Amino acid sequence: MKILVNKSIVEILKDCERPAISNEEILPLIDEIFENVRNRKDQALRAYSLQFDKVKLTDIKVSENEINAASGKIKTATKAAIKKAAQNIRIFHEAQELRSTIVETSPGVKCWQEGRGIERVGIYIPGGTAPLFSTVLMLAIPAQIAQCREVILCTPPGLNGTIDPHILYAAQVSGVKTVFKVGGAQAIAAMTLGTESIPAVYKIFGPGNQFVTAAKLKAQQFNVAIDMPAGPSEIMIIADESANADYVASDILSQAEHGVDSQAVCIVESLELAKKINSAVEYQLKNLPRRQLALKSLENSRIIVLETTESAIDVMNKYAPEHLILCTMNNTLFINQLINAGSVFIGNYTPESAGDYASGTNHTLPTNGFARNYSGVNLDAFIKKITFQEISREGLQNLGPTIEVMAEAEHLIAHKNAVSIRLKSIEDEN
Amino acid sequence: MKILVNKSIVEILKDCERPAISNEEILPLIDEIFENVRNRKDQALRAYSLQFDKVKLTDIKVSENEINAASGKIKTATKAAIKKAAQNIRIFHEAQELRSTIVETSPGVKCWQEGRGIERVGIYIPGGTAPLFSTVLMLAIPAQIAQCREVILCTPPGLNGTIDPHILYAAQVSGVKTVFKVGGAQAIAAMTLGTESIPAVYKIFGPGNQFVTAAKLKAQQFNVAIDMPAGPSEIMIIADESANADYVASDILSQAEHGVDSQAVCIVESLELAKKINSAVEYQLKNLPRRQLALKSLENSRIIVLETTESAIDVMNKYAPEHLILCTMNNTLFINQLINAGSVFIGNYTPESAGDYASGTNHTLPTNGFARNYSGVNLDAFIKKITFQEISREGLQNLGPTIEVMAEAEHLIAHKNAVSIRLKSIEDEN
Repeated sequence: MKILVNKSIVEILKDCERPAISNEEILPLIDEIFENVRNRKDQALRAYSLQFDKVKLTDIKVSENEINAASGKIKTATKAAIKKAAQNIRIFHEAQELRSTIVETSPGVKCWQEGRGIERVGIYIPGGTAPLFSTVLMLAIPAQIAQCREVILCTPPGLNGTIDPHILYAAQVSGVKTVFKVGGAQAIAAMTLGTESIPAVYKIFGPGNQFVTAAKLKAQQFNVAIDMPAGPSEIMIIADESANADYVASDILSQAEHGVDSQAVCIVESLELAKKINSAVEYQLKNLPRRQLALKSLENSRIIVLETTESAIDVMNKYAPEHLILCTMNNTLFINQLINAGSVFIGNYTPESAGDYASGTNHTLPTNGFARNYSGVNLDAFIKKITFQEISREGLQNLGPTIEVMAEAEHLIAHKNAVSIRLKSIEDEN
Repeated sequence: MKILVNKSIVEILKDCERPAISNEEILPLIDEIFENVRNRKDQALRAYSLQFDKVKLTDIKVSENEINAASGKIKTATKAAIKKAAQNIRIFHEAQELRSTIVETSPGVKCWQEGRGIERVGIYIPGGTAPLFSTVLMLAIPAQIAQCREVILCTPPGLNGTIDPHILYAAQVSGVKTVFKVGGAQAIAAMTLGTESIPAVYKIFGPGNQFVTAAKLKAQQFNVAIDMPAGPSEIMIIADESANADYVASDILSQAEHGVDSQAVCIVESLELAKKINSAVEYQLKNLPRRQLALKSLENSRIIVLETTESAIDVMNKYAPEHLILCTMNNTLFINQLINAGSVFIGNYTPESAGDYASGTNHTLPTNGFARNYSGVNLDAFIKKITFQEISREGLQNLGPTIEVMAEAEHLIAHKNAVSIRLKSIEDEN
């Protein structure tokens, strides 16, 4: 890994800039897919499955039997792990439930919020070499807690036309009953526009390649909401002499194996620690199955020597990491000064993979600097908070004149009248 | 107003469809404005002010003197009203603060959320005939509670090159210190890209015409977040014999005066009540200053006679109103069955204008059916919720095997190693 020493904050941030992603080239294809799915619906989905996934689909929907059979195809230990992770995710997201309390802002003026699950949500789970069943838990469990009425899941089938049993089992554990064998941009188009098999939804969640991401952005043009803009994954680790170089290296590599465009940025106090971590990375890399891929993403990764805590805090907030590991003697200081990050892992015994799978926090997090303006997925993402207000007769007598004065100053006389007509009839009654 | 009787739900929803809004025509202009602001910065803003607002700007930033002088230019009663409204908005939004509690999802695995205000936010306030100073309160007060570090406000100057003192006073009351005399799409471009005077922000809030709306959508391409997609304002009123026809009519008109594309939909149980409300609308309309405008938007508005509560609930949720007034003998039933709405006004003494100005709830709400998938602006909109986790040595010994099994099943061996290397060294130490 490249080690940066004696660089200014500006140089460091420049050197750690995320690769710019351009969708422009693929937009015509995405437009075509949406148009095709809109016109030919299921027929279009079948054609795309044949073209992209090399699968001739009989049923687009996964049968109940297929879902029930999944459990028998998975190791007992894996099932137990999925259940344990699901339990922790459920506990943490249930704790996020809105506790609705009535606030009397003025005498007789009661205001409150109530949450309502988004009625129809769609979850996208990518296919490919690794079946990301953990993402099923991360998205379907909060949807279940939010009491979303209809939760559907789309994921591409394998070459044999079936879905990985881990994904189906995770769906079952999370209460998802409707799974479709459709992947790629066409799955997003289907959840946006609806087909004979796939219902249109109000919000789409889940990761995917650049085609899926571009399709999610296009879905917004049809008034469908999405979880967040997506980009390659990243981690920042801030470590001092209290950190363990081997642990830090293992966290760097767990980030690096995600994809060739992943990035790990490690901030340390001394060149000595930097070198130690670098050696540990090289050593651990040797036996990694995804070695080639990790090597590529290590090219985008850096170890930065920064002598002052202030500089480290500055880089941390300006970089706005998706994942942040703090292994220092004063983690509390970093936490108190932290403004921009997706999820934070504290201390030597909290690897990122804990949050990726099983600690209970969500792993769908803002990448690419979006931690500056977006939260990760949490229970809120599946809920709309509706405000309510109920004003008593006396409450309106008290607050009414304020409303009248403001409406008049905004030249909105009908707004004023809505109060005046009520106040007048209260007066007449008295 | 058109009264619908004996219509099916499908016919009703068809008849109440919101007008489709197309931005396509203005997109080239928006692109040009962004390009120009990016290249020529303040110089471009000055040119646009001359072109669109007919104002030759000396200073783009409103001076401290100008802000301080605002108070002297406003009636005492208006100032008192603004302060009263600000107080209620503050009370209600402070009650929304995240109460961070540590959740021990498994023994030794502590997870929690903490809120952080978005560092830099921009508020846009339209100009025009009515100075919307109430929107300043609705957006700046939550930003202040969220402790956003930098809050800027852009609003177009009047013909004399100054800003309406109500807007400046509301800004002052809400803690906004930085106001710029720039309006339209160019203001959004400036807050997105930054100029010599105007800093780039991470999230842009506020209403505006179709140019502003199109510019906000474009801002997203530059990784800037926005509050929500916008559309014309609307209200649904569900009323039975317990409602007062005059009050209902006044609420319909306060919606109708917003703009020609506003919509009011009133659901009643009987044709008799429908006719009574319609007469009251016609009567109250006579003396309204914005009569012509209201007449136009009443063309889009409907009174619908629906005999069953079930049908009314169905239409309510399918229409997904921005504002919902409930004036029935069983409001609780409607509230319990409600899924989609922005803000709800309960009973005869809770006109929409209460929430527009002073009850304490926010008036920046999802229009155009977006109540299906978006919340109105609330404290959350100014905050990112960051997750934290801290796992003890024993916690990792307990949870580690779960993580290892899942990572292996997802073929992510470096993720597994990050746990294994820690567990092994704990073992070695023991």
